[in-house]
Amino acid sequence: MKKIQIFTPKEIRNLIRKGRWNRPTAGLAMGYAQANLVILPEKYAFDFLLFCQRNPKPCPLLEVLEAGEYRTKFLSLEADIRTDIPLYNIYRKGQLKGTVKEIRNIWENHFVTFLLGCSFSFEEALIRSKIPVRHIEEKRNVPMYISNIPCKPAGIFHGPMVVTMRPIPADKVSRAVQITSRYAMVHGAPVHVGDPLMIGIKDLRKPDFGDSVTVKRGEVPVFWACGVTPQAVVMRARPDLCITHTPGHMFISDLLNEELATL
Amino acid sequence: MKKIQIFTPKEIRNLIRKGRWNRPTAGLAMGYAQANLVILPEKYAFDFLLFCQRNPKPCPLLEVLEAGEYRTKFLSLEADIRTDIPLYNIYRKGQLKGTVKEIRNIWENHFVTFLLGCSFSFEEALIRSKIPVRHIEEKRNVPMYISNIPCKPAGIFHGPMVVTMRPIPADKVSRAVQITSRYAMVHGAPVHVGDPLMIGIKDLRKPDFGDSVTVKRGEVPVFWACGVTPQAVVMRARPDLCITHTPGHMFISDLLNEELATL
Repeated sequence: MKKIQIFTPKEIRNLIRKGRWNRPTAGLAMGYAQANLVILPEKYAFDFLLFCQRNPKPCPLLEVLEAGEYRTKFLSLEADIRTDIPLYNIYRKGQLKGTVKEIRNIWENHFVTFLLGCSFSFEEALIRSKIPVRHIEEKRNVPMYISNIPCKPAGIFHGPMVVTMRPIPADKVSRAVQITSRYAMVHGAPVHVGDPLMIGIKDLRKPDFGDSVTVKRGEVPVFWACGVTPQAVVMRARPDLCITHTPGHMFISDLLNEELATL
Repeated sequence: MKKIQIFTPKEIRNLIRKGRWNRPTAGLAMGYAQANLVILPEKYAFDFLLFCQRNPKPCPLLEVLEAGEYRTKFLSLEADIRTDIPLYNIYRKGQLKGTVKEIRNIWENHFVTFLLGCSFSFEEALIRSKIPVRHIEEKRNVPMYISNIPCKPAGIFHGPMVVTMRPIPADKVSRAVQITSRYAMVHGAPVHVGDPLMIGIKDLRKPDFGDSVTVKRGEVPVFWACGVTPQAVVMRARPDLCITHTPGHMFISDLLNEELATL
């Protein structure tokens, strides 16, 4: 029998810190919350924090570090945000300028770090309740669409909400709403149920990001706010500098998804 | 039969704007959310916004206006924060320097306005479910205590959580938790159920603010995070200037409590 090794979040972060894991983090440390990363110079921090406060569904803040802080206090007591993410994207004026394994050498004392919830958490809960998650069944990336739902602007940050779509059997839509409502810190309840055209999506088979998935007869397309929204909004604002995780290469926290859930 | 006049939030705000209502707002515009007010100079705004993000139970942000903005966009489309609150407290370096009916004459373009949820909203829901709210039954102010639960600090802002106490019959504690959990935007679920000493409260009969209420046999003291917390934390930080509502004299919004509630 092959020995299956289960790693804790701490063990995985240690591997990442040593540069020994540069691949996507989906499926790692099941049960633990993963987070999106956005690092901005201090001059943009109030506007971005306000943007997240005004748009909690696409931008659910799990933790914000003060200027210069690179150690988390809430998501983990011993993580270093400069080294503990498998891959980082460096954007200057909204243009991708590089993808790197750590950012210690470019870290500055005026950087403010934002960690945002990720839908991996509620997908686990859907699967536990036997609600199909099609892109996982089909081993694809979740389909993402730029909707016509406007985010509430804040300072220099504005733009449309990016949404993910999961086809849900009609008799399970209520249950899917109930389950994901518990996870307000990771996008929460759907923002739209049904007709894609009403939120500006002309063809479900042509997502703006990710992969197309099969919608079966009797299934309803259900749309959730997506963590790509804050990244798209930041790119559009063209700040001097922005550092994010490389898509799919998330921060793995020590918090269980259930610790983030409500009633 | 005496004619009973029911005012809408807009009508009440108009009376307030004209200086014709300077009394507490409890019981006005039943069903509509009321809000706590904190206005700070821009230099403190990021720290305070971060403090609220880190302490959502005592500091549930309903709306934050950008520097210089005095018109709300979310809680009402036509409210003016400089005139639409019955009474304002002006604090300088943490000291109360005056109580005024409007603040147009001292308004500055670098003021940032924060509006925070208030427990009036969930008390209505408790009463609707026949859960006794003792201080309302006894026509007193809710008892408030400075607990030993530390808030998570942010920049210059730190301090203990202030909590309110409502005695709940033992068989209704679960229901009270369930009901108030729906109202995360107005303090949400209790922070402590039972023994006051465990959170540093030596004598329930001696609240730090508000009035003492009767705890009957078979009732459990249940503690909720209190909106006085952010005010206490701001006073402790002694900013050059801070403007708040005068306690009890709240901002009346156009949002129904049910619009703020979750599942």
